[in-house]
Amino acid sequence: MPKVSEEHFLQKRLHILEAAKAVFCRKGFEPTTMQDVVEASGMSRGGVYRYFSSTEEMIRALLEKNNKEFIKYINELIDEHDKMWDALEDYLQNLESEASDPFSIVVYEYFVTGWRTEERRNYLARRYENGKAIFLRLFEEGVRRGEFSPKQPLEAINSFFINVNDGISMEATLLDEKTVRVAEQIKALKMYLKQALGLTK
Amino acid sequence: MPKVSEEHFLQKRLHILEAAKAVFCRKGFEPTTMQDVVEASGMSRGGVYRYFSSTEEMIRALLEKNNKEFIKYINELIDEHDKMWDALEDYLQNLESEASDPFSIVVYEYFVTGWRTEERRNYLARRYENGKAIFLRLFEEGVRRGEFSPKQPLEAINSFFINVNDGISMEATLLDEKTVRVAEQIKALKMYLKQALGLTK
Repeated sequence: MPKVSEEHFLQKRLHILEAAKAVFCRKGFEPTTMQDVVEASGMSRGGVYRYFSSTEEMIRALLEKNNKEFIKYINELIDEHDKMWDALEDYLQNLESEASDPFSIVVYEYFVTGWRTEERRNYLARRYENGKAIFLRLFEEGVRRGEFSPKQPLEAINSFFINVNDGISMEATLLDEKTVRVAEQIKALKMYLKQALGLTK
Repeated sequence: MPKVSEEHFLQKRLHILEAAKAVFCRKGFEPTTMQDVVEASGMSRGGVYRYFSSTEEMIRALLEKNNKEFIKYINELIDEHDKMWDALEDYLQNLESEASDPFSIVVYEYFVTGWRTEERRNYLARRYENGKAIFLRLFEEGVRRGEFSPKQPLEAINSFFINVNDGISMEATLLDEKTVRVAEQIKALKMYLKQALGLTK
């Protein structure tokens, strides 16, 4: 494909994905139809179908995009900090200020309603493993740099971290940040991490 | 109502709820129709409608039933133990052996897909507050008995505890107990609790 039309292709694709994301956040994933996305995109039906043949394809593309951004973000966190504890604090500060995110509910809905479908369940399992592997690098880097002396297997610390992280984000979006005590929960997580990573005196 | 027919009424109602629960677990909450429950119950359509007019009423009744059982369980845990730490260990051992529970996914589905409906969102908020209040009693009792010297507000410890607890149960059901490292996550939670409750030497 020549460069100009490839750029055009990617721009159009992104435009559709942004429209789809907005509709998913407003209506939920399951209730959203292709027609809803067509209307939200302002494009023709044929124009949208040239890029995606189902809302399932759209949410998968959005999840892949999310995943790439997450990898980039974690890599930057690792590169920008000498101490991995500072990287963790940065990450948690970000979680605190952006705990509530309507798209995270769409993602939960997609998985919770999809767990009875084998294909989607397998996709969820792969995504969970990938997500864990991305974040594990930060903990491993702390050990490599001689900063962390873990009291539990790193994989366990990492799993616990991700569970708490996802729970905070889900609770904060479904309820509100004050009700779920986001700031105090993050303090609790840090209390655990300091001990589990051997950072207590 | 005379005693015999009241008993009959409650038995029939329970029978329908058990049938509904089985269908919800198999098909999911949203896709389940009244007709599905009628078939699963082996009763007539009119017979079922005498008790419930929608699957929404059924899941609410199941959630209320769950809630009563939870209150009873926590009260027993408090009454049966001198030390609230032993009560917590008992609770967590139970979580470890029964982390995976298909009905918990039904409950998550109900809330995650329902958060856009104001009435259901309010119900979720009340249920979350009630659930927290029930468990908080155990932590308060530990303070009252002079066993815990909390390093964070009890409400925060309690919120964190419930977040981790729900996350473990959801992850273990959606994925599997080994993948999500249930036993190690519970160890991590205990590591946190010991410190937050002032039980470390």
